[in-house]
Amino acid sequence: MPHSSPNNPRQTIEFWFDFASNYSYLTAMRIEELAGSQGVDVAWRPFLLGPIFQSFGWESSPFVLQKQKGEYTWKDMARQARKYGVDWVKPTAFPRRAILPARVATLGKNEPWIGDYVRATMARNFAEDKDLDTEDAVREVLASLNVNADEVIAQAQSDENKLQLRQATETAARRGIFGAPMFFVGDEMFWGNDRLEDALDFAKSQAQ
Amino acid sequence: MPHSSPNNPRQTIEFWFDFASNYSYLTAMRIEELAGSQGVDVAWRPFLLGPIFQSFGWESSPFVLQKQKGEYTWKDMARQARKYGVDWVKPTAFPRRAILPARVATLGKNEPWIGDYVRATMARNFAEDKDLDTEDAVREVLASLNVNADEVIAQAQSDENKLQLRQATETAARRGIFGAPMFFVGDEMFWGNDRLEDALDFAKSQAQ
Repeated sequence: MPHSSPNNPRQTIEFWFDFASNYSYLTAMRIEELAGSQGVDVAWRPFLLGPIFQSFGWESSPFVLQKQKGEYTWKDMARQARKYGVDWVKPTAFPRRAILPARVATLGKNEPWIGDYVRATMARNFAEDKDLDTEDAVREVLASLNVNADEVIAQAQSDENKLQLRQATETAARRGIFGAPMFFVGDEMFWGNDRLEDALDFAKSQAQ
Repeated sequence: MPHSSPNNPRQTIEFWFDFASNYSYLTAMRIEELAGSQGVDVAWRPFLLGPIFQSFGWESSPFVLQKQKGEYTWKDMARQARKYGVDWVKPTAFPRRAILPARVATLGKNEPWIGDYVRATMARNFAEDKDLDTEDAVREVLASLNVNADEVIAQAQSDENKLQLRQATETAARRGIFGAPMFFVGDEMFWGNDRLEDALDFAKSQAQ
């Protein structure tokens, strides 16, 4: 991972996300532009929040399990989306299954299309309220980006790539990730879309 | 509650807090000055988070019950306190009992000393790591503000005032409060120190 050194003043922010996570959506739509304007690179880190929640004994998202917090969350999301100027609709399925999209993101995390792919998939969930976890859905997103969908989907479904995503989720758990979005700058961890600016400030402070 | 009307353009933000809540501390130290600079009045709303957590089946704070979130919270608090320029020490007792301080805040919520009292009590917990829930502790705080401590403590312990605090906590639950700090501007609810600015912006937008 690129980190502070005399020969590499450019910093990296790791963005750990799950396509089902609504607050990850707010980050996904703005992180590349915001980080880029500050000279910070984004490392895309797809993982699955489900197994982590299960390890806490939770059967679903806290926004589903805790009624009051859930009701608040949808009001907060509407206000926050307005503040950031991104489209928003409360998804009719939540948390929406997104295993195949996460596998594709795992395969493509260093590809030039990753940012556009993440944004298009997130928008499909949280602005268009469409299913994500089918080959047709993923093909539609990839085709809109002029990516060879058949090839990418086939590779994403390989045992090796499936293992990569499982390992990313295990790494997330080992590093103490308990929600999303989560950011790392080196070993410093920041939780939630509300901390994106702080994480970028910290990255810049490490640049010399 | 003063709210938007042609004859009363000045707005009010309700600040619901518990002295044991660390993120309420960050708000307590800055809300009066920040709101005042924007022409918004603060309505102090002490309540007890414990009974609300118990109603969810939780025996303590989520920062205690969930190890990963707890560990993160203390790192986040140190960074946030630095950002806001307030002193901070991780309390050796958490969540710290604060029934008597909450009763005094209930009694004094409309008194001129309430802001100073809340800040001094919060700082005692989160900057000085001292116990709160004894008559001596409360007397020390009140005396430093030139408030008649014996009189206030006696009234705070009256059945009528105890009932007031219980009713405030019931009102909090009824309005959907699930954590602290919580803000209301009219019926619009905002959760967390991170939403103070948004809540104040909303209050100002209602001023005409």
